[in-house]
Amino acid sequence: MTKIKAAIVGYGNIGHYVLDALKESSDFEIVGIVRRSISNIPSELMPYKVSTKIDDLGEVDVAILCTPTREIEKYATEYLSKGINTVDSYDIHSSIADLRRNLDTVAKANGCVSIISAGWDPGSDSIVRTIMQAAAPKGITYTNFGPGMSMGHTVCVKSKAGVKNALSMTIPLGTGIHRRMVYVELEDGARLEDVAAAVKADPYFASDETHVMAVASVDEVKDMGHGVHMVRKGVSGVTQNQRFEFNMSINNPALTAQILVGTARAAMRQRPGAYTMIEIPVIDLLEGDREELIKHLV
Amino acid sequence: MTKIKAAIVGYGNIGHYVLDALKESSDFEIVGIVRRSISNIPSELMPYKVSTKIDDLGEVDVAILCTPTREIEKYATEYLSKGINTVDSYDIHSSIADLRRNLDTVAKANGCVSIISAGWDPGSDSIVRTIMQAAAPKGITYTNFGPGMSMGHTVCVKSKAGVKNALSMTIPLGTGIHRRMVYVELEDGARLEDVAAAVKADPYFASDETHVMAVASVDEVKDMGHGVHMVRKGVSGVTQNQRFEFNMSINNPALTAQILVGTARAAMRQRPGAYTMIEIPVIDLLEGDREELIKHLV
Repeated sequence: MTKIKAAIVGYGNIGHYVLDALKESSDFEIVGIVRRSISNIPSELMPYKVSTKIDDLGEVDVAILCTPTREIEKYATEYLSKGINTVDSYDIHSSIADLRRNLDTVAKANGCVSIISAGWDPGSDSIVRTIMQAAAPKGITYTNFGPGMSMGHTVCVKSKAGVKNALSMTIPLGTGIHRRMVYVELEDGARLEDVAAAVKADPYFASDETHVMAVASVDEVKDMGHGVHMVRKGVSGVTQNQRFEFNMSINNPALTAQILVGTARAAMRQRPGAYTMIEIPVIDLLEGDREELIKHLV
Repeated sequence: MTKIKAAIVGYGNIGHYVLDALKESSDFEIVGIVRRSISNIPSELMPYKVSTKIDDLGEVDVAILCTPTREIEKYATEYLSKGINTVDSYDIHSSIADLRRNLDTVAKANGCVSIISAGWDPGSDSIVRTIMQAAAPKGITYTNFGPGMSMGHTVCVKSKAGVKNALSMTIPLGTGIHRRMVYVELEDGARLEDVAAAVKADPYFASDETHVMAVASVDEVKDMGHGVHMVRKGVSGVTQNQRFEFNMSINNPALTAQILVGTARAAMRQRPGAYTMIEIPVIDLLEGDREELIKHLV
């Protein structure tokens, strides 16, 4: 069988775990890693081509974008224009529909596929939310996150002036309400109140109760475990009180990376265009013979 | 907007709840009900055409099959041959792949769509199982049912000689092991040991611990509530101990019916062929504008 030629774009936390997940998937070939700089290459990347340009990696079927969320659109647009499929875990909920529309145009114009917002939330949780709504169309779904480290929020805080290192913890308060506990290591001369104001004004944090604290070492308080508790009580037909619940307790970047790799596989199986995860058949995420999967999973 | 013209085929428990769910869905028009006999029509069917033949109902986009599982293939083949899409909640796990293959041929030959095994298990649970496997490809998923009434198993028991009425309860013993508690009202002259032997020999029951008991009145012990507790502990990439859990507590036929109605909608959106639920995008189950759904659910 021809393997899927995958490139990893960006090699932070997610990129590192994507490499792990790709190595465990026998249907993928890792054609290389795109980084902003090729100095200080970690030892685990020695077997692979590392470059600042995707063109140096030869033929690429799918680029797995592990860059900060706000760089996703730029990279996806560039790669789709080259005819390379892309997947990402873009996580700003309020602009997912816009990103999908923009990339859909580029993807279709170039005969390729982009699957966006493919992590666990947005991502696999979105599929569970959709199923719950299909099962009981009237009702309310509450998605409660944490306690755990939010990758997207942490990257956002790190991008603020005066921040050397950061950790944003998500604390569930029930019924979908969350508190953000933000721990920052400040650069010399930076003032906590300036950082706190910048963080609280960011769309990532603006609608949640947010506390920003300075710590001497972020590494000492960092744990990448996370969780979700999702509940829906609703109505099927005219029958009230149908109850659904989804829980998970997971290593956050490891799960995001695994979903990205499944989505990269799925990208090879869709018609040209841009999709969110609720628009693709879940079977396409999996390796293996389709009929065997149906026998085991349906 | 043109409404989807749906026919209900079979009017037992599931058919009754499908009628409820269709009435609550503004994108459907109920063109009528197909029954084996048109005597004793229940009062709630008075507003609709009731016939023994689907041809009497005029144009039908999709037939929602609410017959016993073992009659599904016959009805689906007949209707697909007429160019009518079909959905069903066929629930014999071991022969789903065969049914799909057979109906796929007929559906493609007639340019229409069949979505099979679209209840909650097989059905929405299958989607959750697939997502869990995509999230942690190595590991074990346990699906624990009940305690609750199994519709498929109950219909199976009712079909045995000497059985006037029946109830099959599913009792979870953990790690996907179940006990079947079967309560039967016997016909005059029927012997419990003959009924018990017939039940235990049936593929529906053959692999589970099964107890068959005679009761004076099945109605007095019947409750159509049911539940699922599904768990997976697995590996994302090389990260162990990723934990996932899905629970529900539901009215069984009401949920099956709601999923069938969503699937009937989805059948209008697929290319010709036969599908299980894990092969269709979950968004297709929902009523409403696609971009709005993406904004709310992703």
